Formats: sequence, structure tokens, C-alpha cells
Amino acid sequence: MPLAVQKFGGTSVADADRIRAVADHIARTRREGDDVVAVVSAMGKTTDDLLRLAGDVSSIRPGRELDMLLTSGERISMALLCMALAELGVAAASFTGSQAGIITDETHTKAKILEVRGDRLREALADGVVPVVAGFQGVSTARDVTTLGRGGSDTTAVALAAALGAARCEIYTDVSGVFTADPRIVPTARRLGRISFEEMLEIAATGGRVLSLRSVEFARNHHVPLHVRSSFTWEPGTWVIEEDPSMEQPIVSAVTSDTSEAKLTITKVPDRPGIAASLFRALADNNVNVDMIVQNTSHDGTTDISFTAPRSEMGVAMKVGEELGQRIGASELLLDEAVAQVSVVGAGMRTNPGVTATMFEALAAVGINIQMISTSPIRISCLVEASTADRAVRVLHEAFELDSPA
Amino acid sequence: MPLAVQKFGGTSVADADRIRAVADHIARTRREGDDVVAVVSAMGKTTDDLLRLAGDVSSIRPGRELDMLLTSGERISMALLCMALAELGVAAASFTGSQAGIITDETHTKAKILEVRGDRLREALADGVVPVVAGFQGVSTARDVTTLGRGGSDTTAVALAAALGAARCEIYTDVSGVFTADPRIVPTARRLGRISFEEMLEIAATGGRVLSLRSVEFARNHHVPLHVRSSFTWEPGTWVIEEDPSMEQPIVSAVTSDTSEAKLTITKVPDRPGIAASLFRALADNNVNVDMIVQNTSHDGTTDISFTAPRSEMGVAMKVGEELGQRIGASELLLDEAVAQVSVVGAGMRTNPGVTATMFEALAAVGINIQMISTSPIRISCLVEASTADRAVRVLHEAFELDSPA
Repeated sequence: MPLAVQKFGGTSVADADRIRAVADHIARTRREGDDVVAVVSAMGKTTDDLLRLAGDVSSIRPGRELDMLLTSGERISMALLCMALAELGVAAASFTGSQAGIITDETHTKAKILEVRGDRLREALADGVVPVVAGFQGVSTARDVTTLGRGGSDTTAVALAAALGAARCEIYTDVSGVFTADPRIVPTARRLGRISFEEMLEIAATGGRVLSLRSVEFARNHHVPLHVRSSFTWEPGTWVIEEDPSMEQPIVSAVTSDTSEAKLTITKVPDRPGIAASLFRALADNNVNVDMIVQNTSHDGTTDISFTAPRSEMGVAMKVGEELGQRIGASELLLDEAVAQVSVVGAGMRTNPGVTATMFEALAAVGINIQMISTSPIRISCLVEASTADRAVRVLHEAFELDSPA
Repeated sequence: MPLAVQKFGGTSVADADRIRAVADHIARTRREGDDVVAVVSAMGKTTDDLLRLAGDVSSIRPGRELDMLLTSGERISMALLCMALAELGVAAASFTGSQAGIITDETHTKAKILEVRGDRLREALADGVVPVVAGFQGVSTARDVTTLGRGGSDTTAVALAAALGAARCEIYTDVSGVFTADPRIVPTARRLGRISFEEMLEIAATGGRVLSLRSVEFARNHHVPLHVRSSFTWEPGTWVIEEDPSMEQPIVSAVTSDTSEAKLTITKVPDRPGIAASLFRALADNNVNVDMIVQNTSHDGTTDISFTAPRSEMGVAMKVGEELGQRIGASELLLDEAVAQVSVVGAGMRTNPGVTATMFEALAAVGINIQMISTSPIRISCLVEASTADRAVRVLHEAFELDSPA
């Protein structure tokens, strides 16, 4: 029988009613002839509640203990789901990350999966039992409980799908798929029926929140077809699959925006070889994830260097910039937090050279100034003033004719 | 360094303040020169909350999943305790039952401990780390998560103390020790400074609720000195230790009462050999735990048989009695739920023959009728009308001069 790995996020198992609805859906999937491995997150706000409790107890939270604490959340949701399945007459058994054989490195709170053994899951499936696996968690090579960090449950699901040779990995969430733009910004945004891994990676990297970058990378690398869909309507959602080279690709599939970054400019940097390199080496050494970079043309032997990085890392970036500035004699640091990145993503861009021009024209027509630009073969991103970001998304969505047919 | 296993029950870790107080106490114990292994229960009402949630989700609760669900409780309390210890500068690490090497049989919800490996706890101790172990849970030989049932955390603590060769096992709870009687019934009851395992077993078996029978049996069999004390006052409590044959024992150490049983009488049972045996065999086969038994002298070739058993098992007992009654021609079943067992316990009873007489006289003097009697070498129990139980306890407490000195 084909195997479906079905992952249910926190909102999908938020209360007793939702858990029973999920059990119904799993039972239905089995009646339709598929084997199922379920992966669950902690119920709704459980993780937040546990973190608040930890804050009440101590200001120090060793990663090992934080992982022990947070992994209690999935235990609860998976045991409850198994009980709900039992009531429907479906034999089910819960498995912790450890029991499922999800072996990770020892980096607590953001461990990487090293290996998925899955022997007990295969045994359960062979016995006609639905394995219900705790998402987000594993066991380290030091036999300690670990968590996988942001998007961890999606990663668990994709890793299990790869290890068990699943036909598909279904990611159930509170939205009904991947859209041409955030429907809260663009009410006419359409749900995409399918999208390539590469496009999904660009969307995830530029502000799309439906899937984590990491789980999409894992799925692409292991050729696991993803199906992102709603656990509230259960309707078909968006397939994330390998690009089909025999088909023509849409020039632009989606427009995204991201307000999580800030821009830092260092003025009057001596324009000598090696100076820029020493800045970005220092930033990298301090774990600042630099995204866009612009260097102005030189005036009087100096230049201005601007770059963007996550807002949360700007404190460190400022410190690095100041130290370097003193050493090389740069003039000042200008931090701009009121910026947003607006991107268009589409596999067809590779063969359609006019996209950049269309994008710039559309933004210029409504008076939106472009501060910085970065591109990949299937993406163009512009940094704009934060207050214009939503308007920029709407304008681009219309310019690339992504609106749903009236 | 001497090792103390310190067990903290649900009320002792009920909230953030209590957890910090427990961490303080562990840190103090270490400063005073002892190694510590902590064993914790789930916080306060966690278990009740989880059971309520399970009830909302499903009417069917497979034992394996119930164990998975409930064991999340100790994960939370032990991780939080480790964080509180970290804040005090005490290195600590939490261990699940599985990580601590507590191997059980496969009887979910009331598993028996088969073996305590404890290798990781020994390693932690050698590294100067305080192991904080989840009480109440283990891992079965089938590698599933199990729970130990009622009194399970005490049993975990005693089993670890035995396996690790601890100097003592301290059971912290919300009362300050073992008393000569329940202080809610006898305000003048005294805390006992020490008591023998045998006496404690009798007290636990006849209504004393401070320690579970099972953990005391385990401690006696493995010669683990127990210290029952309060986590609210931290004052010394009651030591439960081997009887010291060189010392004179108190004739009566404590008076207990138990209202959890009911009495069933089967009238006009044919007085032939084997009839009583077939009744009690049938009861045993149906897992009815018979306690006291009385058979009246025979009239006209028939006799009345009365016995007590837990109230919760009386439905089954009635059914067994009815079936047997029809087969052998007994006349009727009389269920009396308004009964209580009142007991006096004391190691000195063995060498003091007058205890029974004193007990009967004291009860007779206030007009309390004795319905049934059972004895052990260090205990005498009387079944009385439930409404007279508290008065009986007070009268006996006074008759055996157990009141605290004025």
C-alpha cells in the first residue's frame, strides 16, 4: 500500500475536537487504501506555556533541560491522538523521537538529524498499526533528548517520509496551501496547485511562512513530494514537487515580502582591496547572516557599504562595524530598521529576461523607491521603505497578472 | 560522600516557588557534604488535568498511550528543577525512567520494576552532577514507556536508593512525618521519631496514607532507611528503619482507621467442608482482595460467612456470592458499606499479651460494638460501625497513652 506521512501542526491538534477531527481524517485515509504515519506537534499554545513556566522558575535554561521540557508537549498530543484513533477502531501507537529512531547531533534546541532508523515504525506498519510520531524531537548520539528548532515538526515528517519511502508527505496546517501572495495583503491572491521545490525554497527564504526552508530543502534533496493543505477544510492544497522540464513554467509564481531584516550602512570606507572582505569575514565569524549587499562607487578613495541582516542580529553587526570602523578609519554607521524586502519568485524567469524591467517599472509607477536589489536565477528581491511594502506586493501581484480570475 | 536519594511529591513541586525551594534544599544538602539524586513527581494537579483531557478526547484509553501521556508530567517538573538548580550554580541533569535505566515488565499503568541499571546516574554523580530522575515511570522490556501505578514515585526513589547504595532515601511530602494517629482525627497525635519497617507496613496497610505499602516493602527488602519529612518546613520527620532488637519497642506505636472497605455477609451457607474454600477461590479468581473473614458457629447445618473487601470490588464480590449462593443453596447476601476498620499497630505487642484486652475494654467503655477482628503479630484490627470510627481512634489513642505530653 502507498504510504502517506501526515504531519499535523499545533493548530491542527489544538484541542480535543481538533484531535478527534485529525483521527477521523487518518481513518478515512486508511479506508481509501493508504498506510499512514502521523507526525504531530505540541497542542496549540503548549510550548508557549512551558516557556513561561520555565521563565518563572529560572533565568538560566540549559539547552538539554529546555529540550526535555518542550518535548513533553508532543507526548501529550500524540498519546491523545492514539486514544482518539482507538475509539474509531484504528490501532495506533505513539513513538517519541527516540523510539522512532530519529538520531541527531548534540546541538540542543536546534539539533540536526543525522540518521532516521525507523525500525519500530516499519514493524508497526507491518502489524497494521498507525505509528503516531512526536515531531520536532530526536535523541542525540549522547542519548539525550534533543529538539530540531524552528520548523522541526515539518523536518521530522519529511525525514520520515524519505526514510520510509513514502509516496508523499502531507503537511496539514491552518492555511489551505501556498498562495501567490499573502492573502492578508492581497485579497485576490490565488492558491497555487503546485510549485517546484526551487520556487518554494525561494518563497520560504523571502518571507513565505507556510513551510520552513529546512524542511523544503530536505524534501528536495530526498525527492519527497510535499502536499501543503488545511486541516480545517481538508481540501486539496498545494503540491511542492520536482520541476517538470517538459512543461512551461509560470514566469512569476508568487510575490513575497519580509520585514524581519534591517539595513546597516558604513560610510566612507577606504576603497582598498581586502577591506570589504575583512568586514564580511568579521560578520560571518560573529554569526551575522548577511543577506543583501551594496557597495557604492568610490568618491575620493572611499565608498559606502550597505548590507541587510536579521533585525535580531543588528546589535552584533553594529559592534563589528564599529570595531572595524575604528581600525580602518571609516566614518559612521547608519542603521535603518524601516525597510522591507519585496520579492518575485518564478521558475520561468530563467528564460524570460523582461522580469526585472517589469518589476522596476511597476514599483516606479507608484513612486516606490528601490534601495537595494538582489537576484537568484528564479527570484528578484528589492529593498524598499517598510511603509510601502504592502503596496509594493499588491502592485507586483497585479503587474505579473497573478490575481485570481474574476 | 554519602548519597541521599531525595524524592519530592506533587505538592512539593506544585509551582515555580515550590520548585525553587526544592532546588535550595538540594543545594544545601550538597553543601552539607552529601551527594544527591532527586526524584520528582508531576507538578500538583498535572496528572488530573491530563486525565481530564484524555476523557475529552476519547472513551478508550489504551494503557500504553495513557502511560505515554502521563509521563509527560515528570518531564516538565524535572526539567524545571534542573533549571532552578542551574540558577543556583548546581550542575544538574534530568533523566527519564528510561534514561535512568528503570526496566519494568510490560504491564502498562501498573508496571513492576524488574531491574535498575542506573549507569547514567552513576556517571553523572561521578561528574559532580545532580541527577534529577522522573518518578513513577520506567521503560518496559518491549522498549515502551510504562508507569508504576499508585505510589510509583516513592517506589522509584527507594529502588534507586537500593541500586545506588544510598545511605538514605528521603521522602518529602506535605506532612511532616508519620503520626501516632491522623492529626485531623486526633489533634494530640504525636509525630513518631522512628518506626520499624514492619510497623510502617501495617500502618500503610490499614489506612495510613503517608507512604505506599509497595515502597515500604521495597525499602525493607533492600534495607533502605527511609526518612519521611515535610518539604514545607524541612524539619526532621520520621525515620522508617530496621527494628533494633536491643531496644524495647513501644507496645503500640500508632492507631489507624480505614473506611475504604465494605462488609458482605452470605447467610445460611451449608456447613460442609470445601464450601468456604470454593467461595474464596472464586473471589480470588475475580481479583477481589478479601481482608477480614468471620464464620459464625453452625446452626441447623448452616453458617453465616462475612468478609470485608475494598468497596470498589464489592460489585464483583456480590456477583460471585450470588452465583455461588444459587449453586449451593445459600440464602441471602447482606452488604454493609457503613463499616470502618480501626487498628492498633506496635512492634512491642509481640511480647505484651494484654493489648487485645485493653483495646476491647476501651471500645466497650464508650459503647462501640466490634463486628469483626483480625490480627497480625504486631497489629490488631477491629471492624466497627463507620460512624463510630473517629471516636474509636481517639479512645484507643488515649487508652494506649499515645497523646503528646501536655
